[in-house]
Amino acid sequence: MQKPAKTKAPINHIIAHRWSPRAFSNKAIEEDKINALLEAARWSSSAFNEQPWRFIIGKKEEETWKKILTTLVEWNQQWAKTAPLLVLNIAKLNFTHNNKPNDVAEYDLGQAVATMALEAVHQGLFGHQMTGFDGKKAAELFNIPEGYKAVSVTAFGYYGNPDDIPADIAKQEINERSRNELKEMVFSTTFGK
Amino acid sequence: MQKPAKTKAPINHIIAHRWSPRAFSNKAIEEDKINALLEAARWSSSAFNEQPWRFIIGKKEEETWKKILTTLVEWNQQWAKTAPLLVLNIAKLNFTHNNKPNDVAEYDLGQAVATMALEAVHQGLFGHQMTGFDGKKAAELFNIPEGYKAVSVTAFGYYGNPDDIPADIAKQEINERSRNELKEMVFSTTFGK
Repeated sequence: MQKPAKTKAPINHIIAHRWSPRAFSNKAIEEDKINALLEAARWSSSAFNEQPWRFIIGKKEEETWKKILTTLVEWNQQWAKTAPLLVLNIAKLNFTHNNKPNDVAEYDLGQAVATMALEAVHQGLFGHQMTGFDGKKAAELFNIPEGYKAVSVTAFGYYGNPDDIPADIAKQEINERSRNELKEMVFSTTFGK
Repeated sequence: MQKPAKTKAPINHIIAHRWSPRAFSNKAIEEDKINALLEAARWSSSAFNEQPWRFIIGKKEEETWKKILTTLVEWNQQWAKTAPLLVLNIAKLNFTHNNKPNDVAEYDLGQAVATMALEAVHQGLFGHQMTGFDGKKAAELFNIPEGYKAVSVTAFGYYGNPDDIPADIAKQEINERSRNELKEMVFSTTFGK
């Protein structure tokens, strides 16, 4: 299932074709594709090249996968359980070189996770990020130390069958993708104009 | 000048070829390419599809470009002044639907800016993000209201001539790109392992 963005200017294929499905196929993701996802994130940019991202990856039927799933809010669990790969995305909050707060740690984590989601499209996969999860529970389950923060979870997989997820959730799969107009987010003289 | 990442797995071209140069060409960026950059950011993903990103864009010789340049720390000004396009990246800190704090506003801004930087590669351009700038001054110069935060500035352009920037900065252009090993950022059972 493809849901290419109705863009007003031609843009790169993997950017236009990225979307966030909820019905994933049971098919496992090949190891070389998982490596490509992680490698793409690794080469993302960050302030002072700090690379303030950490990932805990769980493959279906592994204990880690189950633990990540239990951190999700109930509504997300209903569909995310179809995904063969769950990744917990963690920010390192202080700079390594001076231990001072890194104000863009989460911003840079967002860059890495976005890059991973785009690489997924390149690999014929899809990713769906969630913020509806219990970060405190994740910290306990995975012994995440002070100075690190679990920010989001991404479900990855091949596209599946909407019939495999609850009907009310499956309905959202066919909604058209929408975004605000550029004039609402792009200004050229002062804020808002 | 190309500096493809020495990746350990094949990844998408625009991800592997993105890097952050400091010597930009004087050549202006075509309008359709600027639109493509913005359109790519627009279709980025965000929590609740909030799209908490705002961009103030300044083209060289425009007042906005000069104002953005003056917010940069001196060291960044020395090279960023070669860039034909400067973009101030701003996060909307509260959700629109309920006015509550959006904990992932900056994370989602990071996603949009990363996507814009990748589209730049697709367009034959490069982007270089900076956090070395005065956000308070930017807020004053552009009347950025409460509830919004200027997080970073991106310089965009075609690649230029390292001789056009100070020699000590130009030296950094030829450094090999480096990243930590995956084992330092990817775990599979518990944090750190």
